[in-house]
Amino acid sequence: MPLTLGEIAVRYGCELRGDPDLVVDRVANLADAQPGTIAFLANPRFRPLLERSRAGAIVLGPDDAEACSVPALISANPYLVFAGVAAQLHPPPPLQPGMHHLASVADDCQLPDSCEVAAGAVIETGVRLGERVLIGPNAVICRGAIIGDDTRVLAGVVVCHDVHIGARCLLHPGAVIGSDGFGNARDTAGAWTKVPQLGRVVVGDDVEIGANTTIDRGAIGDTRIHDGVRLDNLIHIAHNVSIGAHTAIAAQAGVAGSSRVGARCMIGGHAAISDHVEVADDVVLLGATMVTGDIRKPGAYGGPANSADEILRWRRNAARFRQLDDMARRLKRLERRQQETPSDD
Amino acid sequence: MPLTLGEIAVRYGCELRGDPDLVVDRVANLADAQPGTIAFLANPRFRPLLERSRAGAIVLGPDDAEACSVPALISANPYLVFAGVAAQLHPPPPLQPGMHHLASVADDCQLPDSCEVAAGAVIETGVRLGERVLIGPNAVICRGAIIGDDTRVLAGVVVCHDVHIGARCLLHPGAVIGSDGFGNARDTAGAWTKVPQLGRVVVGDDVEIGANTTIDRGAIGDTRIHDGVRLDNLIHIAHNVSIGAHTAIAAQAGVAGSSRVGARCMIGGHAAISDHVEVADDVVLLGATMVTGDIRKPGAYGGPANSADEILRWRRNAARFRQLDDMARRLKRLERRQQETPSDD
Amino acid sequence: MPLTLGEIAVRYGCELRGDPDLVVDRVANLADAQPGTIAFLANPRFRPLLERSRAGAIVLGPDDAEACSVPALISANPYLVFAGVAAQLHPPPPLQPGMHHLASVADDCQLPDSCEVAAGAVIETGVRLGERVLIGPNAVICRGAIIGDDTRVLAGVVVCHDVHIGARCLLHPGAVIGSDGFGNARDTAGAWTKVPQLGRVVVGDDVEIGANTTIDRGAIGDTRIHDGVRLDNLIHIAHNVSIGAHTAIAAQAGVAGSSRVGARCMIGGHAAISDHVEVADDVVLLGATMVTGDIRKPGAYGGPANSADEILRWRRNAARFRQLDDMARRLKRLERRQQETPSDD
Repeated sequence: MPLTLGEIAVRYGCELRGDPDLVVDRVANLADAQPGTIAFLANPRFRPLLERSRAGAIVLGPDDAEACSVPALISANPYLVFAGVAAQLHPPPPLQPGMHHLASVADDCQLPDSCEVAAGAVIETGVRLGERVLIGPNAVICRGAIIGDDTRVLAGVVVCHDVHIGARCLLHPGAVIGSDGFGNARDTAGAWTKVPQLGRVVVGDDVEIGANTTIDRGAIGDTRIHDGVRLDNLIHIAHNVSIGAHTAIAAQAGVAGSSRVGARCMIGGHAAISDHVEVADDVVLLGATMVTGDIRKPGAYGGPANSADEILRWRRNAARFRQLDDMARRLKRLERRQQETPSDD
Repeated sequence: MPLTLGEIAVRYGCELRGDPDLVVDRVANLADAQPGTIAFLANPRFRPLLERSRAGAIVLGPDDAEACSVPALISANPYLVFAGVAAQLHPPPPLQPGMHHLASVADDCQLPDSCEVAAGAVIETGVRLGERVLIGPNAVICRGAIIGDDTRVLAGVVVCHDVHIGARCLLHPGAVIGSDGFGNARDTAGAWTKVPQLGRVVVGDDVEIGANTTIDRGAIGDTRIHDGVRLDNLIHIAHNVSIGAHTAIAAQAGVAGSSRVGARCMIGGHAAISDHVEVADDVVLLGATMVTGDIRKPGAYGGPANSADEILRWRRNAARFRQLDDMARRLKRLERRQQETPSDD
Repeated sequence: MPLTLGEIAVRYGCELRGDPDLVVDRVANLADAQPGTIAFLANPRFRPLLERSRAGAIVLGPDDAEACSVPALISANPYLVFAGVAAQLHPPPPLQPGMHHLASVADDCQLPDSCEVAAGAVIETGVRLGERVLIGPNAVICRGAIIGDDTRVLAGVVVCHDVHIGARCLLHPGAVIGSDGFGNARDTAGAWTKVPQLGRVVVGDDVEIGANTTIDRGAIGDTRIHDGVRLDNLIHIAHNVSIGAHTAIAAQAGVAGSSRVGARCMIGGHAAISDHVEVADDVVLLGATMVTGDIRKPGAYGGPANSADEILRWRRNAARFRQLDDMARRLKRLERRQQETPSDD
């Protein structure tokens, strides 16, 4: 569904420099854009590509408009405008309502006619799906799970028993929602007894969960993923964790049991948050940061070597790490010279 | 199946303060427990919740009994007692023996009538299942695999060919047991030739394996996971590794090829153990610890920056890391002053 | 299919010390080898096993030949020779061409008769498979994907829409190829809008992808995995990344968005490469290395505490880390003594 630049400018509140009737029908990168496409510039590193771009139109910030030789849509947040335009130009394929003959759906499920259940999908007893839900090929929805309107559960996802998933969520292939938490009691000989994991996972609306990410159910209470959260691939969320609204976590990060991460946080890849920790709202963690204690103030933090550190302090210390051997040698030299120096003791 | 406090006290060797005929029928958290529930107190951080808890009974240690205003079950290991009680009150749903019509089971499998094979499950030729085994929806058991009595293989698990799984194991969704090890030989041009991975994975009894965890088969010999091991989610166990009995490993940790981890170890999340390393029995590794050499003595170790270090030493060094920039400045100042000081050289 | 030592010597260019008509029919470890087996010695740590080995023949380097008491195949690269011999002695089981009745294949797919489609596999509309492709049990190949000759897609793999996979690839269970990249635009309130991920993943020939590894599709352009790449388990490759030919990456490593890794690199487990970074050809990264800036020269690098460091420098600094608390105390002592020393200021 092609759009005119005029439609885009009106809908996204952009200033348009160019012909409002010009039509774009797909997105492109600045570098290899062709007429008829729309591109964007948000990262200054790509500014040099602006001049030679052959895009039909470019969404960009006010400071870049001058250098743009094709029609420009000027916005304070060009990436956000581009996201909306791209979603309009390239919607996901429409659902094909109905149930594949190689799917297995328990008789007592609530399964509106507007849903699509793909080949190999398994929906167990007591499941309730909202309108227009997609259950992808070989996905498994276990007994008693509830899934909200317009949520898409892609291939091979497992939603375990009694898990609640909100509306308009997107679960990528291989994600596991509601596996048992890691709860084990140890006897005096060192052997483990499993502690039954009896809580649920409750996922809010508009949440995206990445491929092969795992979210464990609560031990007694629930694990909670609030509205608008974004989880990348291969993330581990342990039992009884709470992830605040609109927090984004990059790939391979992990949050250990009972920790609470605030709203609107941004957590880098490979970061690790220990158990029973509180992270405030609006915290940014660099990649591979290790958080072993509470973070009470918004701000950016880093530091794999220890508990997370305020970011400037971390950067200064990390830079010194590369001088550590040199420092040790200089310290030795000072000690030697001081011993040689006559002193009062 | 409800229990009386008297039954619990007798079975788990607790001292009971309260009415032995009082019945509990489900578990609860201290904070939101209602009459009829049983809660526990093991972590001192939750002691303040004790006074106001409305639980029917609380399992706790001798030091906490005085402060408990509801019936108390006193034990030296309250968490272990709670684990047992919770398992009795909340058993997993009973198996529904039989084979779903959308499952695929090879003709020559050994498949006792007591087993449940769910929709979409695939069981290849030569597989042998013990009594009361659960093969969950869309799980795959490849040719020649052997699975012991009462083991539960949950949704989407893949057990590769010729793998042996013991009795009473629990395999969480998406786990892959027996994928090829990462064995590659390099030619002079830098291209790789695959080294066939011909060993097995042999998993003992009473082992739990987390969601999306992967355990590679041995190159020639076997990869071994001994009795009672607990593996959390998204763990990687490489080819020819041995994990000793009752060792517990937290999420996203990894053990590289041919390393041997002893019995009763506790390994933190995101920890990494290099290849061909030996870790003694009864070793504790902090989260994100990197082990690059043998650990020969029981004890606690930490240290992402280098090979693992005895924990007190690691903690002292890690604390200094946060002073590193300050140390560098002070060193510089000392050097400047020493140059200004007249000396003998 | 047994081989004579003579056949092996000729095919792999080895010097043979022993009877060329002697037959071997399987591989074994040095330690527990029996007559009729072939073993190898490549790692000096196993040299002590050489003397007592009862193998039918041993592939080894020229320096080890003297100490070998059984027939020897001498090569400059014994591991590479062994890889070839092992593949000949232990080929994967032959395909069983045809489509299982519990598989689902869209009518318009290109599916040569030489392919095997196992139980529970789902192949969506528009997919094109080459000759002798294996689609394993419960694997899913989404609309428009293309898979080259002789590629084996094992159990539970998900190949997302429009992904291209080359010839002779091996995709291990649970791998997800072509999930959406992690692209999100933020509004002023901190809420995220998804940026549609419209590119593909293009995988070259002879690539191996490990269990539960995830490779995201490009945002606009493609994510590219070049010929001969080896990816271990639980790796994350983000959108628009390029991995150069014959690069090998160990388990649980991650490469963030738009980064480019050169050819013939070797990247250790748990390593992390930040976004928009360039890594040159022939770079070696130690396990758990964190790369936050470009690496322009071939060589070995390490350093979890900071951006990657040239390896000798990293090793020296890391060794000093273990002395950090000691250094801090010595620095303090120097400062105290210097204050006591009469000086000119």
